[in-house]
Amino acid sequence: MDIAGIAQTRYTTKAFDPSRTIPASLMAQLRTVLRLSPSSVNSQPWHFVVAASSGAKERIAKAMQGPYAYNEPKVLNASHVVVLCGKAALDDAHLEAIVAQENRDGRFLAPENMATQDKSRRFYVNLHRDEWKDERTWIDRQVYLALGTLLLAAGAVGVDACTMEGFDGDALDAELGLSRRSLRPLVVVALGYRAADDFNAGLPKSRLPEDVVLTEL
Amino acid sequence: MDIAGIAQTRYTTKAFDPSRTIPASLMAQLRTVLRLSPSSVNSQPWHFVVAASSGAKERIAKAMQGPYAYNEPKVLNASHVVVLCGKAALDDAHLEAIVAQENRDGRFLAPENMATQDKSRRFYVNLHRDEWKDERTWIDRQVYLALGTLLLAAGAVGVDACTMEGFDGDALDAELGLSRRSLRPLVVVALGYRAADDFNAGLPKSRLPEDVVLTEL
Repeated sequence: MDIAGIAQTRYTTKAFDPSRTIPASLMAQLRTVLRLSPSSVNSQPWHFVVAASSGAKERIAKAMQGPYAYNEPKVLNASHVVVLCGKAALDDAHLEAIVAQENRDGRFLAPENMATQDKSRRFYVNLHRDEWKDERTWIDRQVYLALGTLLLAAGAVGVDACTMEGFDGDALDAELGLSRRSLRPLVVVALGYRAADDFNAGLPKSRLPEDVVLTEL
Repeated sequence: MDIAGIAQTRYTTKAFDPSRTIPASLMAQLRTVLRLSPSSVNSQPWHFVVAASSGAKERIAKAMQGPYAYNEPKVLNASHVVVLCGKAALDDAHLEAIVAQENRDGRFLAPENMATQDKSRRFYVNLHRDEWKDERTWIDRQVYLALGTLLLAAGAVGVDACTMEGFDGDALDAELGLSRRSLRPLVVVALGYRAADDFNAGLPKSRLPEDVVLTEL
């Protein structure tokens, strides 16, 4: 599979065709890619809110007003919109849910491995929370890792995407009740198909040359 | 392409076969995927250090000692090791290099678009630096976005990977002279092929169920 070719041809879609919907089978694949994303110590410190209906997209678009109004049409015209949220913290309930799931999934061949795995994960969680004091930004990095897998996966299945950091997080929280669920909205991705007049579709991708961004030791 | 299947079968390799090397054509694809990774306002706030030779991998392994010694064999036995670094800041020289590259690549159909694009990018850089005071963590999130694309791409081309946050950043800096180049090492990825006895290859992947991590509005 020519994954470099997919990385070359995927791009940030600035205008979506409102008449086109991503087939359910493809959205199921992209949801699965998000859910299966790797994360540090399998912490899965995220939640994904998906809007498919017009009404749901209008709710998200309430966060694309005022200085963020340039993003409103992308949300309204896309087929699906995903809000990638980070958890406020990796609390006990979450850590217990993870290790219980790992147990159900059969990752512990010896019973004592379950406690070892739980202890190891908590060591890193405590390290980030108590010593390095970067639990939140550590969480946020994992959410962006999931974002990276989503964007490449979308390109691989021929779905166009637009990633937006420009939105009113407080408005989105008020509309979706995220902080009540201990979630913080970090980034929004519109998914769908480019409009015929999307100016960005015709422009070449631009990146710094390899000798600038990469050193071979 | 069954990208969800790739997400399902890729996994964190805990033991690499030291006798196997990633073909140059595949490594070229993965380097390209890294370089082409999307980033907020095309900021590309990263640098990738790649080790292929035994000597180069030994240099990186100097950061996998003491409490991080469990990661040393992964670095030494992998085919290639990539250190993903974040820039210390998005300084003028970097921002000028990006817009000049965009111009060379033909992204500005009208000459005035170049200044508009530069101004827009600087608005967001200044917002993160001066108002939100999260420039560094904003940069770090973009590096993890690139990490996400690298890991899925590796899976897509049949290359195994192990991501490591467990290393001595100061030791890596001392060995590679990163801070002299205004770079911070964020995460290390070993790439190669699993050893026959990698215990993790036989264990099922475990993730929380979709109804826990995803809400459909």
